Amino acid sequence: MTSISQFTADVRAFSEERDWPKFQDPKSLLLALMGEVGEVAELMQWTREADVVSDFESPERNHRVGDELADVFIYLVRLADVLGVDLGQAAEEKLERNRSRFPTQGPDSIIGKLPSKR
Amino acid sequence: MTSISQFTADVRAFSEERDWPKFQDPKSLLLALMGEVGEVAELMQWTREADVVSDFESPERNHRVGDELADVFIYLVRLADVLGVDLGQAAEEKLERNRSRFPTQGPDSIIGKLPSKR
Amino acid sequence: MTSISQFTADVRAFSEERDWPKFQDPKSLLLALMGEVGEVAELMQWTREADVVSDFESPERNHRVGDELADVFIYLVRLADVLGVDLGQAAEEKLERNRSRFPTQGPDSIIGKLPSKR
Amino acid sequence: MTSISQFTADVRAFSEERDWPKFQDPKSLLLALMGEVGEVAELMQWTREADVVSDFESPERNHRVGDELADVFIYLVRLADVLGVDLGQAAEEKLERNRSRFPTQGPDSIIGKLPSKR
Repeated sequence: MTSISQFTADVRAFSEERDWPKFQDPKSLLLALMGEVGEVAELMQWTREADVVSDFESPERNHRVGDELADVFIYLVRLADVLGVDLGQAAEEKLERNRSRFPTQGPDSIIGKLPSKR
Repeated sequence: MTSISQFTADVRAFSEERDWPKFQDPKSLLLALMGEVGEVAELMQWTREADVVSDFESPERNHRVGDELADVFIYLVRLADVLGVDLGQAAEEKLERNRSRFPTQGPDSIIGKLPSKR
Repeated sequence: MTSISQFTADVRAFSEERDWPKFQDPKSLLLALMGEVGEVAELMQWTREADVVSDFESPERNHRVGDELADVFIYLVRLADVLGVDLGQAAEEKLERNRSRFPTQGPDSIIGKLPSKR
Repeated sequence: MTSISQFTADVRAFSEERDWPKFQDPKSLLLALMGEVGEVAELMQWTREADVVSDFESPERNHRVGDELADVFIYLVRLADVLGVDLGQAAEEKLERNRSRFPTQGPDSIIGKLPSKR
C-alpha cells in the first residue's frame, strides 16, 4: 500500500543520491515523461481496440506494459515534486470536482455527454 | 496520505458510477492521457528553462499546473487498472531495479552517464 | 502544391517577423508540438475506432481536425529548421529506407510482421 | 523540392503496397506519431536548453534527429490522408490566419503576448 507522498519522497531521494536534480528541470522531466508515454503507445498502437486488454493478459506482456507505466509514473511524481505540487492532494481534489461536474443522475447527468466533448 | 491502490479504486468507482468503462479501452485512455500531458506542456512551453520553477510558485499558477498533473495521474491509474497492472507495485519494482542499474558509487556509477543517454 | 522547403521558409519568415526565434529553442518547440498533438487526441479519443474516419467527414469536423494537424505540422517544420534538418530530404530518405526494410514480397516480406512489433 | 501532396501520395502508395491501411485507423496512427515524438524527446531531454542546437550540429547527431523527425512527418501525412485532410492546404490556411491573429505591428501587435499565453 504505497502512498503517493511516500513514493514521491523515494523518487526524490533516488534522484538526489545520484546528483540528478540539476538535470531535472520541469521541461526536461516533461519531455522524459513524453518519451515514456511514447513507449507505452508503441506497445499497443497496432493492436485492434477490442484486443488490447486480452493482449496484455499474458504475464510477459503485462509485466512489459507495467514497466513502461511505472516509468511514466516515476517522471510524473518527480515533475510534480519539482513544481511544488502535492500530487495526491491535487488528484483527490480533482476527482472530487469531477464528481460535482458529472453527477451520476438528474438533469445534469453525464449520460451522453462524454462522447460529444468536442 | 492517499495510497495508489486506494486512488485507483476511487477512480474505478467514479468511472463505473457513470457507465464510462465502455469508452475506456486502453488506446482511448492513452490518447486522453496524451491530451492532458499536452495541457501541461502548454503551461510551460515558452517559459525559459531557468524560470519555470519560480513561475509556478504563485498559488494561482501552482494550482493550475497541479490541476493538469492530476488529470494525467487520473488517466494513468485508470489505464493501469484497465490493463490489469498494479501501478504501485510496478513503480516500486522499477525504482528498485533503477537502484541496481544506477549505483551511487563505484566503477558502475552513473556519474556522467545520464546526459550521454543517446 | 506547396513544397516542404517553401513552407519551412514561410514559417521561418513568419517567426522572424514577430521576433519569436528567441523563444523557439528545440525543447520548447517540441513541447509546443506535443500540445498540438494533444489537441488532435482530444478530438478523437472517445470515438470508437471504427467510427473515427466517418466522424471527420462532416465539413465542420474535417476543418477542425485539419486545423490541429496544421498546428502540429507548423511546429514540426519549425523544429526541423531550428535543428538544421532538411525535413523533406530526411523524409524522402526514410521512406526509401523503409522500402528496403519492408519488401513487398519474398522471404523478407512484411506480411504478418507489423502487428507483432513488440 | 518535394511537395506535401506528392509525399502524401508516396506514403499512401507505400502503405497500400504492404496492405497496411487496415491497421492505419486514425487513433492507431496518432499513437504511432506519439511514439516517434517520444523518440525525438529522448534525444534532447537531458541537454541544457542553451546547448541543444549545437549538440545536433555534428553530422551523426543531425542525421539521428532528422531520422526521428522524418518518422513523425510520415505518420502525420498518413494521418491527415486517412482523415481526408489536405495537409498542405490546411497548413497554408493556418499560417495565413496566424498572420492576421498576430500582426507584426500596431495596437494588436504580438510583442509580449506569446510568453504570457497561459
